[in-house]
Amino acid sequence: MAAWAERLAGVRGVLLDISGVLYDSGAGGGAAIPGSVEAVARLKRSPLKVRFCTNESQKPRAELVGLLQRLGFDISEGEVTAPAPATCQILKERGLRPHLLIHDGVRSEFDHIDTSNPNCVVIADAGEGFSYQNMNKAFQVLMELENPVLISLGKGRYYKETSGLMLDVGAYMKALEYACGVEAEVVGKPSPEFFKSALQAIGVEAHEAIMIGDDIVGDVGGAQRCGMRALQVRTGKYSPRYP
Amino acid sequence: MAAWAERLAGVRGVLLDISGVLYDSGAGGGAAIPGSVEAVARLKRSPLKVRFCTNESQKPRAELVGLLQRLGFDISEGEVTAPAPATCQILKERGLRPHLLIHDGVRSEFDHIDTSNPNCVVIADAGEGFSYQNMNKAFQVLMELENPVLISLGKGRYYKETSGLMLDVGAYMKALEYACGVEAEVVGKPSPEFFKSALQAIGVEAHEAIMIGDDIVGDVGGAQRCGMRALQVRTGKYSPRYP
Repeated sequence: MAAWAERLAGVRGVLLDISGVLYDSGAGGGAAIPGSVEAVARLKRSPLKVRFCTNESQKPRAELVGLLQRLGFDISEGEVTAPAPATCQILKERGLRPHLLIHDGVRSEFDHIDTSNPNCVVIADAGEGFSYQNMNKAFQVLMELENPVLISLGKGRYYKETSGLMLDVGAYMKALEYACGVEAEVVGKPSPEFFKSALQAIGVEAHEAIMIGDDIVGDVGGAQRCGMRALQVRTGKYSPRYP
Repeated sequence: MAAWAERLAGVRGVLLDISGVLYDSGAGGGAAIPGSVEAVARLKRSPLKVRFCTNESQKPRAELVGLLQRLGFDISEGEVTAPAPATCQILKERGLRPHLLIHDGVRSEFDHIDTSNPNCVVIADAGEGFSYQNMNKAFQVLMELENPVLISLGKGRYYKETSGLMLDVGAYMKALEYACGVEAEVVGKPSPEFFKSALQAIGVEAHEAIMIGDDIVGDVGGAQRCGMRALQVRTGKYSPRYP
């Protein structure tokens, strides 16, 4: 316990990943990971600032929060940093009109975005939407652009559903990067801007914060590169073979 | 012409790519590229040895040859080096039992291969077969293997059909490489073994051969790395923007 106290000295804020840490997604909405509802409740009763920091891009933020509330979590929409709203802000700032390769479930987040005559491609965890036809369309849009811009909501390799491991958006981002000879801009973990926006929301500096996640690259590595401490849980996609 | 004569000095054999050089695939079997039927006929009347060297992996070799014959080409199955037969030989030599992520059209080439209890994944240009479900299955098979082996029939970025540019197997190979943290073994161009087997078939040394293709990486770069000369045609996927 002494070691823990030392490692956590000066921590004022906690960033919590959602998928694989609080719950595993899946049929019927998924399942809370044992102990996580209580852990969140306890953190919230403590003096620590808490922010949820997710790459979830299949569902609108409101729907994700509703689902977690039904599983018993103390969470509200305003406490969640998610890539879809951050992407919309970037699109507006840069005058980008996306071709969207995204899950139908999250399309409403982009309702107010001009998608006519696209000058970029936005890719998110589309799940079954990653058909050959949809991938080929995104590829063709990029190949026709003078300056191809590819924005990816996260770059995770895979995540865990209750039914097993599932390919994440990062694999498809790599496919388009290779086919088109471009490098994607990542909105979401492990992008430093994304972590910083989560920290700003709770008024905590990086050196005062700890990130808790199940992804050694997206959560732990990304947070550490921003000057945060980080902790990998042994739930979600964690595996002793693929730490 | 003097320059050409010099460049071609000592050439005894010609390797010809098929898709984008002889014809563009597409609805109704595709279309011969103007002048190519005559060019092949003329090469065959010359003292040069001719070998067809393709990464085509959607159709069995016999079907591809039948299609080209109907388009007017002087070509027979025994003159074609293609990745599916080469892959079957490797699988047998190494006792590999593949999970096949391939086009239904080419499945018959693997009829005599044991696919029970897979210990590797073979990926080819599956076209519409590259659904999320099929990709996820291949991913899950690889993740469950102690020593994951991924064999890719070519690693092309894209090819041209009569209807436009189409994503090729290389993009999906990259997706699985990234998701699983493995490096694929490529059977087909630009693998040196593949070029060498095509040269052996016509008894020509690399320095006596020229490769003619539309892919600057798979055809031209690959052949040059093997000590061949190479020539890029301006048909197929060739584009002044993406040479």
